[in-house]
Amino acid sequence: MEFGLFTSEGGPGPSPPVADEVPTQAPRLGMFSKVTDDAAHYHTKITIVGVGQVGMACAYSVLNQHLVSEIVLMDVNEDKLKGEMMDLQHGLTFCRPIKISAGTDYALTANSKVCVVTAGARQREGESRLDLVQRNTDIFKGIIPDLVKYSPNTILLIVSNPVDILTYVAWKLSGGLPKHRVIGSGTNLDSSRFRFLMSQKLNVSPSSVHGFIIGEHGDSSVPVWSTANVAGVRLSELHPDIGKSDDPEKWHELHGQVMDSAYEIIKLKGYTSWAIGLSVSSMLEALLINTRNVYAVSTLATGFHGIKEEVFLSLPCVLGSSGVSHIVNQSLTKEEEKRLQDSATALHSVQKGLKF
Amino acid sequence: MEFGLFTSEGGPGPSPPVADEVPTQAPRLGMFSKVTDDAAHYHTKITIVGVGQVGMACAYSVLNQHLVSEIVLMDVNEDKLKGEMMDLQHGLTFCRPIKISAGTDYALTANSKVCVVTAGARQREGESRLDLVQRNTDIFKGIIPDLVKYSPNTILLIVSNPVDILTYVAWKLSGGLPKHRVIGSGTNLDSSRFRFLMSQKLNVSPSSVHGFIIGEHGDSSVPVWSTANVAGVRLSELHPDIGKSDDPEKWHELHGQVMDSAYEIIKLKGYTSWAIGLSVSSMLEALLINTRNVYAVSTLATGFHGIKEEVFLSLPCVLGSSGVSHIVNQSLTKEEEKRLQDSATALHSVQKGLKF
Amino acid sequence: MEFGLFTSEGGPGPSPPVADEVPTQAPRLGMFSKVTDDAAHYHTKITIVGVGQVGMACAYSVLNQHLVSEIVLMDVNEDKLKGEMMDLQHGLTFCRPIKISAGTDYALTANSKVCVVTAGARQREGESRLDLVQRNTDIFKGIIPDLVKYSPNTILLIVSNPVDILTYVAWKLSGGLPKHRVIGSGTNLDSSRFRFLMSQKLNVSPSSVHGFIIGEHGDSSVPVWSTANVAGVRLSELHPDIGKSDDPEKWHELHGQVMDSAYEIIKLKGYTSWAIGLSVSSMLEALLINTRNVYAVSTLATGFHGIKEEVFLSLPCVLGSSGVSHIVNQSLTKEEEKRLQDSATALHSVQKGLKF
Amino acid sequence: MEFGLFTSEGGPGPSPPVADEVPTQAPRLGMFSKVTDDAAHYHTKITIVGVGQVGMACAYSVLNQHLVSEIVLMDVNEDKLKGEMMDLQHGLTFCRPIKISAGTDYALTANSKVCVVTAGARQREGESRLDLVQRNTDIFKGIIPDLVKYSPNTILLIVSNPVDILTYVAWKLSGGLPKHRVIGSGTNLDSSRFRFLMSQKLNVSPSSVHGFIIGEHGDSSVPVWSTANVAGVRLSELHPDIGKSDDPEKWHELHGQVMDSAYEIIKLKGYTSWAIGLSVSSMLEALLINTRNVYAVSTLATGFHGIKEEVFLSLPCVLGSSGVSHIVNQSLTKEEEKRLQDSATALHSVQKGLKF
Repeated sequence: MEFGLFTSEGGPGPSPPVADEVPTQAPRLGMFSKVTDDAAHYHTKITIVGVGQVGMACAYSVLNQHLVSEIVLMDVNEDKLKGEMMDLQHGLTFCRPIKISAGTDYALTANSKVCVVTAGARQREGESRLDLVQRNTDIFKGIIPDLVKYSPNTILLIVSNPVDILTYVAWKLSGGLPKHRVIGSGTNLDSSRFRFLMSQKLNVSPSSVHGFIIGEHGDSSVPVWSTANVAGVRLSELHPDIGKSDDPEKWHELHGQVMDSAYEIIKLKGYTSWAIGLSVSSMLEALLINTRNVYAVSTLATGFHGIKEEVFLSLPCVLGSSGVSHIVNQSLTKEEEKRLQDSATALHSVQKGLKF
Repeated sequence: MEFGLFTSEGGPGPSPPVADEVPTQAPRLGMFSKVTDDAAHYHTKITIVGVGQVGMACAYSVLNQHLVSEIVLMDVNEDKLKGEMMDLQHGLTFCRPIKISAGTDYALTANSKVCVVTAGARQREGESRLDLVQRNTDIFKGIIPDLVKYSPNTILLIVSNPVDILTYVAWKLSGGLPKHRVIGSGTNLDSSRFRFLMSQKLNVSPSSVHGFIIGEHGDSSVPVWSTANVAGVRLSELHPDIGKSDDPEKWHELHGQVMDSAYEIIKLKGYTSWAIGLSVSSMLEALLINTRNVYAVSTLATGFHGIKEEVFLSLPCVLGSSGVSHIVNQSLTKEEEKRLQDSATALHSVQKGLKF
Repeated sequence: MEFGLFTSEGGPGPSPPVADEVPTQAPRLGMFSKVTDDAAHYHTKITIVGVGQVGMACAYSVLNQHLVSEIVLMDVNEDKLKGEMMDLQHGLTFCRPIKISAGTDYALTANSKVCVVTAGARQREGESRLDLVQRNTDIFKGIIPDLVKYSPNTILLIVSNPVDILTYVAWKLSGGLPKHRVIGSGTNLDSSRFRFLMSQKLNVSPSSVHGFIIGEHGDSSVPVWSTANVAGVRLSELHPDIGKSDDPEKWHELHGQVMDSAYEIIKLKGYTSWAIGLSVSSMLEALLINTRNVYAVSTLATGFHGIKEEVFLSLPCVLGSSGVSHIVNQSLTKEEEKRLQDSATALHSVQKGLKF
Repeated sequence: MEFGLFTSEGGPGPSPPVADEVPTQAPRLGMFSKVTDDAAHYHTKITIVGVGQVGMACAYSVLNQHLVSEIVLMDVNEDKLKGEMMDLQHGLTFCRPIKISAGTDYALTANSKVCVVTAGARQREGESRLDLVQRNTDIFKGIIPDLVKYSPNTILLIVSNPVDILTYVAWKLSGGLPKHRVIGSGTNLDSSRFRFLMSQKLNVSPSSVHGFIIGEHGDSSVPVWSTANVAGVRLSELHPDIGKSDDPEKWHELHGQVMDSAYEIIKLKGYTSWAIGLSVSSMLEALLINTRNVYAVSTLATGFHGIKEEVFLSLPCVLGSSGVSHIVNQSLTKEEEKRLQDSATALHSVQKGLKF
């Protein structure tokens, strides 16, 4: 699926009939006496751009977890868009009845508290990374400015890949959105995979194993073995060789498995969806409720750990209603810092070639 | 407990330390790098006035159900207020970490989406109903204008008893709040008790038995037997005598049990709390999320079912982000209408004597 | 995707490493002292057979809603099975950490409280309905006896289509499971679509509009217009022509839209998934918690409304921990009964040709 | 309130009418056709002994969080018992409709997965600690053997104070329940208070601040400053003096505030309830769902950290369906170990005087 210029020509026609937009002349059978015409408000409205497997897993998770009062779906594929909207709406009897709307006109997204962007092109065979990023940058030109136009106070949560560069691109295209309100889903999912794999090896709950993967979401991500812990007890204290390639207990293989996860799942089922949906739901809770929980997300990393370039990379961040309010100052080894810096340089070299 | 003029003199001092108000000079150990000073927003903030058993059951239910992002507790009893706030805060590690604050200064309540009022005096021995209502009216004079001052777009949800008259009083004291944004909890709880008792007799879930009790919350409430149903099958179709006093199956006793419930529970445990807390939580969900569900709540009933006086009584209402948007037009029997009209007259005669 | 004989040859190897099965010699780093070797228990274990879009929407909804303590996924497509399991597991850090396992060996499913069957072949071009049903019957021969073998006290919840006949087939193949423990998802979804569409026309919450579609899940389903209601107020009282084809308000079109929904969504997005997932979650809650709520589900309908054949059709049923404990006695019009009976005859004529 | 010998003489009569016990001759109006007489099962049944403020906060939290399918309330105060049961039942229309029963006959509690014990006497003025513990031991004699008689596979979760000694007493009175199935709520609440206070000082979510208080629940509890952390970054690395009495940043005062919390809240509101209710709910989730999360709970500590006596003290434990399956091996300082050992000695000297 490719996202280009959004258009409403030949679209689904008038925006879908939703609760507060029913024309007042609608047949009501005399069932009700009207008390007020006041417009409805949806205090926790979000927009999800892109109704592929990732965007819909996000929407379904959010719906099942009762996190918001309104979901707006946006896409250029109007058939799919309408089908996904209807399929969600038909289940509203079984959960908290929120408003679900969809369309190609960004006016629908007005006043979204958070906009989740999952749209983007996939790599073509033989296509260079720069070419792919340029194509997605062109797609984002048709998305980001419109989102910001209708929701100038929104937080952008970028999920499309390569997420670190595209978060930078979204920031650049946002026309001045402050850096703390442009966030990439980054290594939040990698960290979750890491914690799950450690939890299986230790036979304990994933939510009781703490550990972060930071840096670039992808092959150069950095596991912070030094501080991984259960109940504050660091694995590295019990096993000083943890994470090293000659460790006989082979803990380092867990990071390999994390890096391979996306490839393996795509090979097995064609795409990844469920875990990223849960990851996004969790971050949305933090952003909408101002929980101030810590997540490894892609943020403007300039000045941290010796990074000089203007790049987005994942670091542990406090998420709240303003987006990223603080970054946790981790004490990294020289090798870990080196890997972060190398990632930054590599990302920057791609970014330099982009045409906005 | 009596509520008079709220004052902050000798109060708990500076408002409790809450997440977004920590002074920037606070010791942070170098744990974080600040990214933004942007103020936090709490999109689903509510205020609960009165931290007695009812107010706290509401707060605890709301906290456990993850319905809001901020709860403000208000009371004149500063010790109890601080104790209740601390007791809630100490459990935040085990649920969604929302903001909980408390104080006697109404500035704390600014921009509440809904204000739940549970404060009020109890009847003294030998006190006339009018005297009690006058005392509570005087208490409300110290609450309602301040709530509206700081949250001019709020919805007032009145729980204090006698709820119908006090909802009218709140409306009068609100300085012009539109009628659809002043709501009394009314017979929503009576209806729930009614449905539970029918569910036990029918051996089915309370949420699959539908039936409403309307009118005055109290001894003159009106059960609408004619439309009580399971899966659309009306009990009255199967049993035409239902609700009549000579019915050998004695269904009418259920209404008697509903009317006796508050008295019986107060006799047994000293007060009622849990069910009203769940009732309020449910209405808050409708008001905050704009679910547009139907509840029997106390609303300005003038013009309905032949009621001529300016009184609040419970009717089935559609609740959304504007408060009461519609009233369901029930087809009542002449006897049911008569009882509503008599209640209206009785309530009005008390209201006439009130001094504002 | 076609389901035939399940086999573990060449399968994903040893069953996936799950919490309580970690070998005791696993490296633990000295992190823990063991207190007991007692086996873990999963009191609310379910199995989902078939990891296509429907099965996975069920699993994801159940996971997000925290309904169970263990989900077992079964399928013959081992790659997809492993991919889906991994994708769910990688999100466990963000929700209640339940056990998720998957495999092709039915021993994994032992002691499931409910088994949800979503596996089945789709209609081939030119294939007769009987041929399709026979193919699915053959597939069910490889599923149902094994499920019952390992969970003799389970409840079977059949979702595969054509659901009414396949629920009958499952009952026949179950080797004596009592009829109340073999349930088809039936018109629960049709009823939800019906309620959603009425809710849009009335501008009220879907959960405050009550109405049932009964009979065959599909083109011959029967909307029970006579008892559709809001707050007990029947639409038919306000509009006696409701549901008739010459009604100028065109309410009957809603039933047409319900019947067209599956076709339209499949045309638009390729399949239906989200609403059926929420429908199944809701029924699972009733079955696992013994809520005793009423759902329109496919049940052995012989003897109801003049049905003489041994067929499964949807009627409003009370669902609890025993499955279908009661059927609601609806008062239907002659025309509605006639349509039910015709459906029964048509289903029976297909069933007669089946070879078990 | 004092708990002595439980008796059913003059009790509330026949056990309360609950869904699955309605006599079959009950009037049903012809609403339903019965399909099966199979008894209902409640897979996640719990019992709460003691319906004071603590017991009821537990029950209300569990109800609001949808954690169980059945709650049984036990107490000797039959009036209060009935009042609390009715008050919970009347709210069931607004939440997942579970079964709530109450009575003085322990047969009601049969097959509870977990029994939460909150009953107990309070200290009288001038009463020695041993005298109080002896009185509560005598009360427990009327509770624990009966619980174990009807639910031989249950887990006992003791909340009554002094919790460490009473957990030991419950174990002794249980007639051979394995140690991993007798758990005291211990310092789980102290740890939550500790994390909340640190979260306020650091301006971050309580669930992102990790730290444990272990040892005796009460004045001799031990904060493990060395491993307290945010995102794996230890406070002690940034501030080596943390927890010491001459620390200018005064972090040690947080532990003082934790120890004072119960006293302060009791002074302010008369009792503590909400936080302990949330603490118990969280542990119940771990025990019922087998989440395997880590909690600081009171467990048989003999052999850990040089403790020689047979005493229960809080240590970080993995909780699952078997109770305490593992204890986390924390590396404590000599001073911390010394304080644990002193607590053990002090507790043991009280226990020695008890008469069983």
